[in-house]
Amino acid sequence: MNLPTQVRIVEVGPRDGLQNERVAVSTDVKLELIDRLGRAGLREIEATAFVAPRWVPQMADHAELMTALPRRPGVRYPVLVPNLKGLEAALRAGAREVAIFPAATESFSRRNLNCSVAESLARCSEVTRAALAAGVTVRGYISCALGCPFEGKVAAERVAEMAEALLLQGCSELSLGDTIGAGTPGSTWRLWEAVLRRVPVSRVAGHFHDTGGMAVANILASLQIGVAIFDSSVAGLGGCPYAPGASGNVATEDVLFLLDGLGIETGIDPRLLAEAGDFISAAIGRVPAVRSRALRPAQALHSEASSA
Amino acid sequence: MNLPTQVRIVEVGPRDGLQNERVAVSTDVKLELIDRLGRAGLREIEATAFVAPRWVPQMADHAELMTALPRRPGVRYPVLVPNLKGLEAALRAGAREVAIFPAATESFSRRNLNCSVAESLARCSEVTRAALAAGVTVRGYISCALGCPFEGKVAAERVAEMAEALLLQGCSELSLGDTIGAGTPGSTWRLWEAVLRRVPVSRVAGHFHDTGGMAVANILASLQIGVAIFDSSVAGLGGCPYAPGASGNVATEDVLFLLDGLGIETGIDPRLLAEAGDFISAAIGRVPAVRSRALRPAQALHSEASSA
Repeated sequence: MNLPTQVRIVEVGPRDGLQNERVAVSTDVKLELIDRLGRAGLREIEATAFVAPRWVPQMADHAELMTALPRRPGVRYPVLVPNLKGLEAALRAGAREVAIFPAATESFSRRNLNCSVAESLARCSEVTRAALAAGVTVRGYISCALGCPFEGKVAAERVAEMAEALLLQGCSELSLGDTIGAGTPGSTWRLWEAVLRRVPVSRVAGHFHDTGGMAVANILASLQIGVAIFDSSVAGLGGCPYAPGASGNVATEDVLFLLDGLGIETGIDPRLLAEAGDFISAAIGRVPAVRSRALRPAQALHSEASSA
Repeated sequence: MNLPTQVRIVEVGPRDGLQNERVAVSTDVKLELIDRLGRAGLREIEATAFVAPRWVPQMADHAELMTALPRRPGVRYPVLVPNLKGLEAALRAGAREVAIFPAATESFSRRNLNCSVAESLARCSEVTRAALAAGVTVRGYISCALGCPFEGKVAAERVAEMAEALLLQGCSELSLGDTIGAGTPGSTWRLWEAVLRRVPVSRVAGHFHDTGGMAVANILASLQIGVAIFDSSVAGLGGCPYAPGASGNVATEDVLFLLDGLGIETGIDPRLLAEAGDFISAAIGRVPAVRSRALRPAQALHSEASSA
């Protein structure tokens, strides 16, 4: 078994997670969450998005949040920027790493970004050039890499071409997003096979949603072909625990439980991470999504002792 | 990648699942569930347990249920028997396959079976001998194979020795149960490595609970070393969807989604299976645990279209 010895986790809870929760969260709570995540050992925490408040009101405090972020050595705070205007606002607020987010399919691109795939790639190129000129690194997300809510299956080769194009534009890293959680280990392997013919494995990340219940297995499948960067969301933020069909981002706690069990290092403290998850779950009145029992022997004992 | 081309799924929802739900289910509803599961293509459906109604009231209708089971060619209905008395009752009711269920740890054995591990193995031997004499096959479950709620980690070698002993007693197959869902792909591989030094891979099954969120990944890990029999529960019956920390048996729908994606044959129709899951979820007033989005594009579209 040829697994990576170290994995880097990119925590996306404060942005991808909170953006998709129904409860609004104050800037102070976001800042405490981010501080707790940093203390738990996360070194890359997606902090916010410089998108129009009209479209994403949950991220309207982006500038205020950026200027108040904890200054912790070695911790980076990438932010999403949809276009040049967003990039300029992010730079003004002090962002040192930004992320762009084209989609792999025309239908999703039109619905989510209001432009064609080709137009979005042109926009990405423009943003990336300006960001690099300002000395800021750019991460590229590709949405719908394993399935599209409008088009169904997505050809791996199409994603691979887009990944290569973004790398050539100057992205430092590409995160392939299973936005609707439609991927399985089988389709995950096929995707990486196509992508890694064009892009080095050191430049790709997996961004899995647990909607189909496969996220942890997809991460295992990815690890087995050498992928060593994964996005996840503390407490599984972004899914709705009241509607089991709608789980969102894979929980950072679950990813850590998987990696710890494989002896793969992440530098993350599971107890501090669980505390960060409990904190934000309580703050938004959410049933904690943390399923890892590693830290919950009493609960396990209670609910399982009577079963065969 | 050396994966099995076919997998046999042992459906445990009507027994392991319903036994651990809080809502009582009528015999008629159980029978319709079992009928639907058979129509969906499941060939081995754990039907009930011949245990004392005082301890497990949910299974008090075992004799009535057994005599009314749908007669479907090729479908088998194993039932749990804790001792000779249970075996005799099962035989009277027409059971052709029984299952015994010792535990890997002393504490769990004392709490769940009210005897030591050695005593329970002696009892298993007695039951197995009598069952074989009656021409009935015996499946052996080993509880707590990947963790114990009282003792924590469990040595793989101890489980391997117990598996070998049960096989020598005459069990046709051994199902290793991660009763509290504490296993990860790492510990799962280590367990199989120890067990398969003593027992042929064709004689073992994996029985994973999703309490720690790792069940599907553990099944993937097991497939990769050749295990080709898995227990699962339609709709994830046995967990409680209102308490996310308490998920139980891995959902048959999720296992099928994994296997279909890998091109592994099971003979199960995903749509009929999902309908069986919807039927029992509605019958017990449970939020369906089915997370597979393969059959739910409209829902996926609704909840994910607006996220990046």
